[in-house]
Amino acid sequence: MNHATITPTDNGPYLVQGDVTLLDAEGNAYEVTDTIALCRCGLSATKPFCDGSHEKTYFKAVNRAPTTYRPTGWLVQIAR
Amino acid sequence: MNHATITPTDNGPYLVQGDVTLLDAEGNAYEVTDTIALCRCGLSATKPFCDGSHEKTYFKAVNRAPTTYRPTGWLVQIAR
Repeated sequence: MNHATITPTDNGPYLVQGDVTLLDAEGNAYEVTDTIALCRCGLSATKPFCDGSHEKTYFKAVNRAPTTYRPTGWLVQIAR
Repeated sequence: MNHATITPTDNGPYLVQGDVTLLDAEGNAYEVTDTIALCRCGLSATKPFCDGSHEKTYFKAVNRAPTTYRPTGWLVQIAR
């Protein structure tokens, strides 16, 4: 098994590699390959997967570590 | 170590749990907790993390398995 990594690509999708299970909100697993691209522009017609829409819509997001993560309102809310 | 899972929540972020490394596009790791929320509406001001923007922008995405993943143009392109 390969360690799972998620990479928010520059102006593109999340590249997901390695040993990870993709679940829907009801807990059912998607059948996926070892490398997948997940939509992060919000506009894919095949969500949660990337369909290349970010290129047509000029999605801009270049993000760099280090950024120490602190749960925001949404996560704190659902964690209650 | 807990197995990594990614869940595209209904109308919300990706909920990421377990043993996974979040890397930026240069390969540097973010310091994250065991549970994180990644933006999938494309509008967070704290990308790649969710900041709750999906609620203000009425992001709609309710996705369910099974959907067999087939790499789309973008992934095929970068895999070359």
